[in-house]
Amino acid sequence: MSDTIDSRLEALGISLPQAAAPAANYVPYVISGNLLYLSGQLPMENGTLAVTGLVGKDVDVKGAERAAELCAINILAQAKAALGDLSRIVRVIKLNGFVASAPGFVEQHLVINGASNLIANVLGDAGKHARAAVGMAALPLNAAVEIDAIMEIAL
Amino acid sequence: MSDTIDSRLEALGISLPQAAAPAANYVPYVISGNLLYLSGQLPMENGTLAVTGLVGKDVDVKGAERAAELCAINILAQAKAALGDLSRIVRVIKLNGFVASAPGFVEQHLVINGASNLIANVLGDAGKHARAAVGMAALPLNAAVEIDAIMEIAL
Amino acid sequence: MSDTIDSRLEALGISLPQAAAPAANYVPYVISGNLLYLSGQLPMENGTLAVTGLVGKDVDVKGAERAAELCAINILAQAKAALGDLSRIVRVIKLNGFVASAPGFVEQHLVINGASNLIANVLGDAGKHARAAVGMAALPLNAAVEIDAIMEIAL
Repeated sequence: MSDTIDSRLEALGISLPQAAAPAANYVPYVISGNLLYLSGQLPMENGTLAVTGLVGKDVDVKGAERAAELCAINILAQAKAALGDLSRIVRVIKLNGFVASAPGFVEQHLVINGASNLIANVLGDAGKHARAAVGMAALPLNAAVEIDAIMEIAL
Repeated sequence: MSDTIDSRLEALGISLPQAAAPAANYVPYVISGNLLYLSGQLPMENGTLAVTGLVGKDVDVKGAERAAELCAINILAQAKAALGDLSRIVRVIKLNGFVASAPGFVEQHLVINGASNLIANVLGDAGKHARAAVGMAALPLNAAVEIDAIMEIAL
Repeated sequence: MSDTIDSRLEALGISLPQAAAPAANYVPYVISGNLLYLSGQLPMENGTLAVTGLVGKDVDVKGAERAAELCAINILAQAKAALGDLSRIVRVIKLNGFVASAPGFVEQHLVINGASNLIANVLGDAGKHARAAVGMAALPLNAAVEIDAIMEIAL
């Protein structure tokens, strides 16, 4: 199963980054029982914020979908740091997708599909999650997208 | 108990719609242990989005409250699809109420009362939930309100 | 442990207010198994909303950080009402920090640090949480900040 996930990541051309360390009095993840709660992840790539601005004005849907993919990659990187091995993910329970939205932009669902598709492509049925996709006035550091997650894990 | 809920629904004039199928690589609900996580529901009625626009500009509080009621009805419809029978709901744990808000609109709590009241009226004490009500820049498909939920269920 | 928390609260000059009663068909908290879900808390102080308006326009980062501290104090007050004793908090799992944000304000993370620092200072390692910090169009009653929480508790 671990081999499968690694080979899918490779086939998708995804290499998980080193998980970012916490920057304050909070942490990237908390495990409680068999639940893994992951902090909101920004579209970081190679250590910098890759997609900034309001979607519908500074960023188009395609660019924002890519931002959502990067958030999902960072979620998987944090999950790997938490679990050692992504095959311990029994089920991705929920994604909350926050899209920094210009007035009148109403395709947050298409943006967050970037993350939903990536997670399902990497994890298979275990990656099929409930979700909410919503439009924000702004996000930290001017990120275009932020996504957090809850997962059920094998102990 | 199931009879009670059905009779309350009838007394309130609510008929639950067919639960909408997932439209992408995510699903309307995930069950993990005795927790049911429901995806964000929009104010769909008879298969179309019934209430659109920004509350405080395009939609008034009354209309938005109705939107929140429709979100709650769709949450119950998804819960019924997940559980077979709403009497398996032990407790509605949390509602997150997202209100598309025009600048200066600050009555998100009154809007989400539409959902809180409906859920409590249908489910009784099991429907008394924690919640957050917040104001969004915009929502998918220009929906006026989106609500997601977590419930404790009987296995 | 209870003594430690009380003495930390005293050292920090924090006295927990009487927890506010629910104002509608929802409740300030729900306990499900060993999880405590707390409703979104506003920056109430002495029974009134202490910090209102959009951060980045009506409120500066310092003022908003103080608002986040007040939200955290109200979270602890509700947790105390729920648990009797804050030493029953095994771990603060997640904070969701909602910051009412003027266009272009992108330091939601600094604002929510006010809550993260307070919770960690009061609860120690048990207070180190996952979190999301996001920017809202507006919040109920024109509050500058709203924060909700999930905690693991000892039964």
